[in-house]
Amino acid sequence: MPVFNAHLPAKRFSSAQKRDLGNALNQSLVQGLGIPAGDRFIMLQEHGEDELFIDPDFMDIHRGPDAVIITVLFGAHRPLSDKHKVVKEIGERASHALGISSDSIFIVLIPVPNENFSFGRGELQLAGTAAKW
Amino acid sequence: MPVFNAHLPAKRFSSAQKRDLGNALNQSLVQGLGIPAGDRFIMLQEHGEDELFIDPDFMDIHRGPDAVIITVLFGAHRPLSDKHKVVKEIGERASHALGISSDSIFIVLIPVPNENFSFGRGELQLAGTAAKW
Amino acid sequence: MPVFNAHLPAKRFSSAQKRDLGNALNQSLVQGLGIPAGDRFIMLQEHGEDELFIDPDFMDIHRGPDAVIITVLFGAHRPLSDKHKVVKEIGERASHALGISSDSIFIVLIPVPNENFSFGRGELQLAGTAAKW
Repeated sequence: MPVFNAHLPAKRFSSAQKRDLGNALNQSLVQGLGIPAGDRFIMLQEHGEDELFIDPDFMDIHRGPDAVIITVLFGAHRPLSDKHKVVKEIGERASHALGISSDSIFIVLIPVPNENFSFGRGELQLAGTAAKW
Repeated sequence: MPVFNAHLPAKRFSSAQKRDLGNALNQSLVQGLGIPAGDRFIMLQEHGEDELFIDPDFMDIHRGPDAVIITVLFGAHRPLSDKHKVVKEIGERASHALGISSDSIFIVLIPVPNENFSFGRGELQLAGTAAKW
Repeated sequence: MPVFNAHLPAKRFSSAQKRDLGNALNQSLVQGLGIPAGDRFIMLQEHGEDELFIDPDFMDIHRGPDAVIITVLFGAHRPLSDKHKVVKEIGERASHALGISSDSIFIVLIPVPNENFSFGRGELQLAGTAAKW
């Protein structure tokens, strides 16, 4: 149930690349954390040149004009080891999908308790259950 | 002070439906949690077909091509009972406003402490006060 | 590493104002919290009239049709004193950049642990380090 929101510079990526990115983000959960492939809830959006400001070298990382910011609504119960795994997978897979350096992929994991997710029907399907994913 | 961000598939909903959704989300707070009607801070945005990926049947819930993702910046102090109430209200009311099944409404409540909200003027109006809403 | 997402009413602000807003948000961190100027990761996006609903006078604050909502992914370790500082700076500087009243600037600080930020390369650069920023 991690939910992605990927913010891209406008008009830099093709529709095929955007679909590939969606698949890459989903696979980062499947391969990195053993999450079911059906757990696929992903948003992308484009920002104009006057709407996306990403520093080119903060922390000695070299970000190009094609750099992106990806936020992930991420289970608050997950340990640091899972965070390491998932950002490694996202970095590699999103880099490949978009044809950009992994230096250009900025990620933030926003912690959300599992009981706060509704998969539909106005219900909190994971409330009161042990965390599986 | 819950703040909504509703992510919709592009060109599926009319302007009237979008305004109705805004009202529905506001009423979900008023009716579900007794929050004042004036507490109305709501964003909607559309995503193209290559920008919104929502699984059609994960967790045995059946989501259509008109499915939406709604995130809510939600008081971190609220108990599970309030979360149940608000997602039930959102599911019913957003479903009615958009003319879609409540199966197609995915919701995430992102916990935010009340003291982290500024209603304007560069001040944190709820810092140091007991949580009312 | 606070990351901004500013939601603006569409077509109200010029490209120059949007760039000024980016600079203003960055400076709110530099001047308010002593964060390095290179820590500059900012998204802006516009919403149509049927996509942004901001109450005009909730909490006796007077918001115009040019009102904005700014969310900030903000270090969860920061004390209330830092929150006061940063929203004061954002209110003043964003008001100046956009030419609107600070009443019209709604801000939410979303807490995120420092270890949840990846500045690139699929790594969590701040994991296991004492919080500097």
